[in-house]
Amino acid sequence: MIRIAVLGAGRIGKIHASNVAASLNAKVADPVEASAKALAVRLGCDATTDCSAAIDRDDVDAIVIGTPTDTHITYMLQAVRKGKAVLCEKPIDLDMLKSTEAATEVERLNGRVMLAFNRRFDPTSQAFRKAIDAGEIGDIRQVIISSRDPGMPPRDYVLHSGGIFRDMVIHDLDTARWLLGEEPVEVMAMGNRLIDSSLAELNDFDTIMVQMRTASGKQCHINCCREAVYGYDQRFEVSGSKGMLLQDNLRPSTIRRWTAETTDAREPLLNFFLERYVDAYKNELEAFVDAIKNNAPMPTTVRDGLEALRLAECALQSALTGKPVQVSSLA
Amino acid sequence: MIRIAVLGAGRIGKIHASNVAASLNAKVADPVEASAKALAVRLGCDATTDCSAAIDRDDVDAIVIGTPTDTHITYMLQAVRKGKAVLCEKPIDLDMLKSTEAATEVERLNGRVMLAFNRRFDPTSQAFRKAIDAGEIGDIRQVIISSRDPGMPPRDYVLHSGGIFRDMVIHDLDTARWLLGEEPVEVMAMGNRLIDSSLAELNDFDTIMVQMRTASGKQCHINCCREAVYGYDQRFEVSGSKGMLLQDNLRPSTIRRWTAETTDAREPLLNFFLERYVDAYKNELEAFVDAIKNNAPMPTTVRDGLEALRLAECALQSALTGKPVQVSSLA
Amino acid sequence: MIRIAVLGAGRIGKIHASNVAASLNAKVADPVEASAKALAVRLGCDATTDCSAAIDRDDVDAIVIGTPTDTHITYMLQAVRKGKAVLCEKPIDLDMLKSTEAATEVERLNGRVMLAFNRRFDPTSQAFRKAIDAGEIGDIRQVIISSRDPGMPPRDYVLHSGGIFRDMVIHDLDTARWLLGEEPVEVMAMGNRLIDSSLAELNDFDTIMVQMRTASGKQCHINCCREAVYGYDQRFEVSGSKGMLLQDNLRPSTIRRWTAETTDAREPLLNFFLERYVDAYKNELEAFVDAIKNNAPMPTTVRDGLEALRLAECALQSALTGKPVQVSSLA
Amino acid sequence: MIRIAVLGAGRIGKIHASNVAASLNAKVADPVEASAKALAVRLGCDATTDCSAAIDRDDVDAIVIGTPTDTHITYMLQAVRKGKAVLCEKPIDLDMLKSTEAATEVERLNGRVMLAFNRRFDPTSQAFRKAIDAGEIGDIRQVIISSRDPGMPPRDYVLHSGGIFRDMVIHDLDTARWLLGEEPVEVMAMGNRLIDSSLAELNDFDTIMVQMRTASGKQCHINCCREAVYGYDQRFEVSGSKGMLLQDNLRPSTIRRWTAETTDAREPLLNFFLERYVDAYKNELEAFVDAIKNNAPMPTTVRDGLEALRLAECALQSALTGKPVQVSSLA
Repeated sequence: MIRIAVLGAGRIGKIHASNVAASLNAKVADPVEASAKALAVRLGCDATTDCSAAIDRDDVDAIVIGTPTDTHITYMLQAVRKGKAVLCEKPIDLDMLKSTEAATEVERLNGRVMLAFNRRFDPTSQAFRKAIDAGEIGDIRQVIISSRDPGMPPRDYVLHSGGIFRDMVIHDLDTARWLLGEEPVEVMAMGNRLIDSSLAELNDFDTIMVQMRTASGKQCHINCCREAVYGYDQRFEVSGSKGMLLQDNLRPSTIRRWTAETTDAREPLLNFFLERYVDAYKNELEAFVDAIKNNAPMPTTVRDGLEALRLAECALQSALTGKPVQVSSLA
Repeated sequence: MIRIAVLGAGRIGKIHASNVAASLNAKVADPVEASAKALAVRLGCDATTDCSAAIDRDDVDAIVIGTPTDTHITYMLQAVRKGKAVLCEKPIDLDMLKSTEAATEVERLNGRVMLAFNRRFDPTSQAFRKAIDAGEIGDIRQVIISSRDPGMPPRDYVLHSGGIFRDMVIHDLDTARWLLGEEPVEVMAMGNRLIDSSLAELNDFDTIMVQMRTASGKQCHINCCREAVYGYDQRFEVSGSKGMLLQDNLRPSTIRRWTAETTDAREPLLNFFLERYVDAYKNELEAFVDAIKNNAPMPTTVRDGLEALRLAECALQSALTGKPVQVSSLA
Repeated sequence: MIRIAVLGAGRIGKIHASNVAASLNAKVADPVEASAKALAVRLGCDATTDCSAAIDRDDVDAIVIGTPTDTHITYMLQAVRKGKAVLCEKPIDLDMLKSTEAATEVERLNGRVMLAFNRRFDPTSQAFRKAIDAGEIGDIRQVIISSRDPGMPPRDYVLHSGGIFRDMVIHDLDTARWLLGEEPVEVMAMGNRLIDSSLAELNDFDTIMVQMRTASGKQCHINCCREAVYGYDQRFEVSGSKGMLLQDNLRPSTIRRWTAETTDAREPLLNFFLERYVDAYKNELEAFVDAIKNNAPMPTTVRDGLEALRLAECALQSALTGKPVQVSSLA
Repeated sequence: MIRIAVLGAGRIGKIHASNVAASLNAKVADPVEASAKALAVRLGCDATTDCSAAIDRDDVDAIVIGTPTDTHITYMLQAVRKGKAVLCEKPIDLDMLKSTEAATEVERLNGRVMLAFNRRFDPTSQAFRKAIDAGEIGDIRQVIISSRDPGMPPRDYVLHSGGIFRDMVIHDLDTARWLLGEEPVEVMAMGNRLIDSSLAELNDFDTIMVQMRTASGKQCHINCCREAVYGYDQRFEVSGSKGMLLQDNLRPSTIRRWTAETTDAREPLLNFFLERYVDAYKNELEAFVDAIKNNAPMPTTVRDGLEALRLAECALQSALTGKPVQVSSLA
């Protein structure tokens, strides 16, 4: 049995720890003692406030990093050097240079690091991958991704998020890379502040559009907004020479309502990512454990984390300057 | 060009006359002079109050009967004897015996009479027929028909309607025969008064269910209600050994609404049959004219009208007695 | 913590035991030693082949009965007499008389028995209940239930199933009672053999329709078939004076396909009840445990099991005799 | 009664002429005598080969221009100078300068010219307008338009089309202006050749993406492709502070198919614009006639035609240079 230590007992750490606890040997580490203990009690496992010590323990085979972003690289490299497998939340770091160095170091050490792009493990995403790989839609032409959060995050979160591109759009940029099957070479982005004009002080935006293309001319559009009254909107579509695939949203149930005002109305969307991607998080952890057990390549790599961040940097730069950015210019 | 006289300038006559006028040589006849004239002026054609004379005119090749039910047989037989083709609104008559005699007489005279079961000519119904005939769903097993009116008709209408089975359910019984491709042999019906309890005085109902089976064991369920706040509900489904076909409702547009309360909500249904079956009425008239031009068999016959009425009688009898009725007992 | 013994390590026992194991203190009992051990090892809990002894254990608070139908009453009464809460799979027994005696005895002893009508605990069913109770659709008028299995069960299963009405339709009859909120008083059923004509030897059917009404005139239709090539079809709708609610099917993902042949096509349905009702089984067990913890009434009772069986008997008798059956005649 | 002369008896002229003929006094003019006569015979109206003479006729009140693009301005100005109302197919002209001069001249003369942006008159578009104007979705934030043709047009058509931006995307640019309710100020476009690489010779593309923003920061994305195997794809969505509206595609019928492979599959889309926008063309002509009768402002103006063309020019320039284009730079 793989023995896993989960670093970070916050929102995302709780998800990972619960999934670990269901069938694996879990430990929980969080500098905040109360958080670590509360979660450990719930899961019936050990708790510690020393994340670094948890990585070093002999009875730990793999590490899940759900701590604040600025600690990712430290723990990742420590774990890799100890020969332990790592599942690390995105992004690697908010700084492109540090991220590049970290990725290079992980690769030099043949470290086994998986970047937690949870959406790739959603059942519908998996169905997309399978259908595209089976040639169902032929050669891909256009990818359209719509991604909206239910509401603005707290100001404090925004301050440390790295901005909408590095924090939120990065998921969609990873999805884009994954669906396109080819690296984007050019990025054009627009950012506006339609909800909170004070974001200007942070050079941040609440409403953005990105369009990108690959060397062979495949195109991708992404639209994101920090707020949607109808809930956490997660749709994408891929069209190709033989057809199109669409991803619809999930809802809490399949009930449909017919009244004098509307017909066939569906329920509001699942509120946010913890609810929407419940199965994706489970599948993600399972994929991580399977890769360890089978000594197989990680399904997503530190390089994936770096490339998504690079696209986020390009998009941010484009939105700030109003000019297209060649991806190669950030190499 | 086929020259057509439309008898009856009421609700249904107007529809037929408009469809005739668009491309054919129309005349309008209605005992109420004002009605006849008003419609004729609108269509730029002749008007008369003498329906019988209109049938006899030399410059009339075919007759569309949209007059009150108790005049259907008279005009139908007059026209047949004059060698003219007839499109007659359903039912033949509210009386089973009279209807049987009329149908027998029409058949004896090789009369060319089409019964106006408009729903068979709806584009979705036509798509069903084509798919079933192509063997898409294999051998038919179960047919489910849901059919609800937007609101109770006026008392006066109910009084002369012959009751819910002869007036409303007859359409669904015809649809059932058409979809099953085999005659029902047994009918079980339930009638209740959930909207207007005073219908008891008329031995009538506002909410009914029917189930029937054919000799080979195919089953059919029909549910009807005189009122649905969400509009004129017209759905059916056919399941077979290889699959299932569903008919969804139509709406005025394809707009879908997403709000904080619901998502993907569609518009209310088209209000009633004149709006819902606009294309069906056009196609019906076209099929009638095509049959005349090509000297081909009528797509629906007076026999179809009789068999649908027979099923309505069986259902009514079953609902009143609480017992199943063998269709052969009404032969 | 509630300590639960699961009797029966077969298909349904496995589901319950897994749900128990996730958060509760489980034991597994099955007369077949290999089955009991295999499941216990998987869950890391105790195993025994003596179901009766498992009921009596001091460290067991509640019993889940997933053994063959003809043992349900014995174990249920033993547990009730020991003062233990019981979650019992449907039906109570295939025999109406024995079931009635058992239900009466449970009630005399104030036994705490929950009948496992899993579908009531499906998220969409729960959403229905909530919407109906909130008055969203006003007074209920018609309930339509469509319920089809993906394929014919093995002959051996059919032989011991009690027939389609007691085995399969009983779920829909329970759903009908639950949605109607009022007892049906009259039942008309039709049974046919469109898939396997040899079922005639067993007085059984593969394709059925039922229609029922309550004392106040609410109507319900049920259609079932032992086979549907497109998968396990589970839909229902309830219409009332203010609107209608529909339950759509679930699918493995929300992918939709657009090709030259079809558009917006969804995936095949989840294969069968274990996949379709995964959440319902979890919620069911949780509701059972909550009722125990809070000393609250069981959400479904042995009386519910009896009434659903009574309707199944009525429907079977109606299908065999071709006559409507008054529910009171089976009291 | 308004008396209308339809110039051009080609594909689009036929549509307009048929709609005119149904209720108005039509004349048909086309330099190709056979075309003019064929259509006139079908509609039972006069034919001529002299478009200019048709404009001048005393018994003509209004002109519908469906002739080749390079004749639009000539006929438009002739008609305006004669004081006649004009419904002119888009674009005004392929040349921005000539178009600007023509628009200015029409405005100087207070000419009554309606530009035929048919999609604005589609029932779903009208429902959008109404919902937006009613404040249903609050302040608009993002508009997403997907627009794909069923297949590549013939080479000869492409040669004279002005390219994908002026010929095809112009419709979507007009839709964007109409939905946004505010002029775009910046345009970024990407064009690729994924279907026909030889389009490079013409500086044309087959697959494009455009993103634009307005002065207040509203954003719009458009994706177009000259080919989609699943048919003529016409969707758009508008999200705002209070909700979102989607436009789904239309299909020939509402049939849905369930088989072992897929469930709930809908039919292929209507083949192309003549089928898809049948109602839109009727409504468009009706709106034109209503504006004449009521002496009301034209619902779309020559200025609308000019602004849509300006955006097409901006998009083309952006796609060719790889740089964003400020709309004001083309003023």
